[in-house]
Amino acid sequence: MSSQPKTFVASTLFERIERARRRKTQFRDTHITLAHGSGGKAMHDLIQSVFVETLRNPLLERLEDQAVFTVHNDRGLTNTPTRLAFSTDSFVVDPLFFPGGDIGSLAVNGTVNDLAMSGALPLYLSASFIIEEGFSIDELRRVVASMAVAADAAGVAVVTGDTKVVQKGSADKLFINTAGVGILEKNTRISAAAARPGDKVILSGAIGDHGITVMVARGELELESQIRSDSAALNSLVQEMVSEAEEYSDIEALHCLRDPTRGGLATTLNEFAQASEAAIRIHEECIPVREEVQGACEILGLDPLYVANEGRLVAVVAAGIADRMLCRMRKHPLGCDSCIIGEVQSEPRGIVSMVTGFGGTRIVDMLVGDQLPRIC
Amino acid sequence: MSSQPKTFVASTLFERIERARRRKTQFRDTHITLAHGSGGKAMHDLIQSVFVETLRNPLLERLEDQAVFTVHNDRGLTNTPTRLAFSTDSFVVDPLFFPGGDIGSLAVNGTVNDLAMSGALPLYLSASFIIEEGFSIDELRRVVASMAVAADAAGVAVVTGDTKVVQKGSADKLFINTAGVGILEKNTRISAAAARPGDKVILSGAIGDHGITVMVARGELELESQIRSDSAALNSLVQEMVSEAEEYSDIEALHCLRDPTRGGLATTLNEFAQASEAAIRIHEECIPVREEVQGACEILGLDPLYVANEGRLVAVVAAGIADRMLCRMRKHPLGCDSCIIGEVQSEPRGIVSMVTGFGGTRIVDMLVGDQLPRIC
Repeated sequence: MSSQPKTFVASTLFERIERARRRKTQFRDTHITLAHGSGGKAMHDLIQSVFVETLRNPLLERLEDQAVFTVHNDRGLTNTPTRLAFSTDSFVVDPLFFPGGDIGSLAVNGTVNDLAMSGALPLYLSASFIIEEGFSIDELRRVVASMAVAADAAGVAVVTGDTKVVQKGSADKLFINTAGVGILEKNTRISAAAARPGDKVILSGAIGDHGITVMVARGELELESQIRSDSAALNSLVQEMVSEAEEYSDIEALHCLRDPTRGGLATTLNEFAQASEAAIRIHEECIPVREEVQGACEILGLDPLYVANEGRLVAVVAAGIADRMLCRMRKHPLGCDSCIIGEVQSEPRGIVSMVTGFGGTRIVDMLVGDQLPRIC
Repeated sequence: MSSQPKTFVASTLFERIERARRRKTQFRDTHITLAHGSGGKAMHDLIQSVFVETLRNPLLERLEDQAVFTVHNDRGLTNTPTRLAFSTDSFVVDPLFFPGGDIGSLAVNGTVNDLAMSGALPLYLSASFIIEEGFSIDELRRVVASMAVAADAAGVAVVTGDTKVVQKGSADKLFINTAGVGILEKNTRISAAAARPGDKVILSGAIGDHGITVMVARGELELESQIRSDSAALNSLVQEMVSEAEEYSDIEALHCLRDPTRGGLATTLNEFAQASEAAIRIHEECIPVREEVQGACEILGLDPLYVANEGRLVAVVAAGIADRMLCRMRKHPLGCDSCIIGEVQSEPRGIVSMVTGFGGTRIVDMLVGDQLPRIC
């Protein structure tokens, strides 16, 4: 948690690519560590070798943050199949309440965002609570009220749920799972695998606010800060982006879309680069990081590229619509600090690199280990 | 856990009804207890006063085990809206492995059943894991393999997921949430509120197997038994039942359908009686209970009516189709021990009563307290 990520250790591209290849076939971990929940490499390896290998099916293998499928309604004669998005996330954030949000609003926004990143309109959420015996019902009410406010703001309804209670000591206060269903009205084909050389990478705002806010809120660091979590529902911003592509260009010009949560911006870009078999180059000076976040990261030995966000998105779009898209995003309150941070190249495939403030270039690998456990 | 449920304490109908009315407006608990997760009265009160009151919407207020809604696909001109079912459940069962199942198969079957009880064809599941640091990856593989087998058997696919890891001591080994989406192809209107005086109550098999199996598997009781959990996916049985109603009568003759999990048969019948504002009378001698389950219940001071099941269903059907439905159910491997256990009456509203083996009648209330924590 305290050491700098391994991205700073030099190794050749060849070594890295070979290591990545080996990793796919060699998963030899015997016990779960915090790194397996970090959003980074260890988690990807676990998901690939335990979950995807065992549960094998084409939708799961796509490794998107949501499944998109069509349902066929046999009751009409000329029905077009309905395209739906479906996603789930469990929330174990510690502490439960922090500046800018709490586990309740986070649980709503997180699943709304996972649905929205496919271009879907989020419609309905489920909410499932695992509560530790002895938890305060007043705090539970606060969390549920916060979910209600967040759901209203995002235009979704919590329509089904479940409650489990475990003995004192068998869980830490409160965990919430939300799953969600959305509808794809437009013919979007957004995918982490859709980045093409020449595309531009757009980031919707400053990075690291959520992760640093939660770290500071734990009170273990003797840091004080005015930073607030960026937790927000991004579905209305995404709808603007889908409309922009549809109205002024081609809806398929919107290639990749993802919210960089656990593992941060660096991990999301690596996911795009690997799934698309392309290279992504970003420019350090273009990436907005608040001064306070930068300062906290320096004290804690963290790299803001790996710190979690809960109200930001990264988009990869065709170069021809990048400027227009940027303008449209900046008109939205949640996209007003959007900027183009880089571009997609053909080689070296699967690799993310960053032109640093000093003019050098360094490789930006996926998160190794876990900087910040229980951040969401 | 060890005392007999309060159903044995005599009180007048009037007192009970008044108490139930008062309960609706007075929820004064300040801290979560195991009873709030029991499936019984305390849980219903918590759900009503905290979740439903706060998250208010017509779908949630129906208090079904799944939400049923229509999605409108604007892309076709003459489209019939598609009716979907959506449900969620978190699983915290202790121990993780027990005769007849494990947390993985339970998590698949549980959500498949919640979808099926609306008459829906379950299609897709999500799976979200909260894992304690230090958990064995071999055990995780076993659980996931069991989910894969259960999903295949039920004809569903796990298409999206999430993994969280918490520090050692912050969760007990492994919790799994599944949510699911199903499609309603037939015009079923199944609801806990649809029971009508004259209807028959059908139970699909012996009660209490799951709960007693899990209790014995904990190894705390120095009991040995050959009992296995009844955990199973009931969707194919439900499809037979829907077909029976549709082909030989009226699809709307299938009134209520629910799987009696936490809180057992007694709680499910109370839910039907209350939602339908009707009385349900059952006959003790008609309710199948395995000898071993009965014996274990006597030793433990439990009433099998309140013990959890994970592969049984209770149906309320129009009297005219009851015998035919029973025949059809008995032809299915998961319904071969089905029997008619009672009938719906008009008065006293909201009350379940049982004609005992001795010929007397006793009120069967909802579960008070928690007999068996972490049973699913």
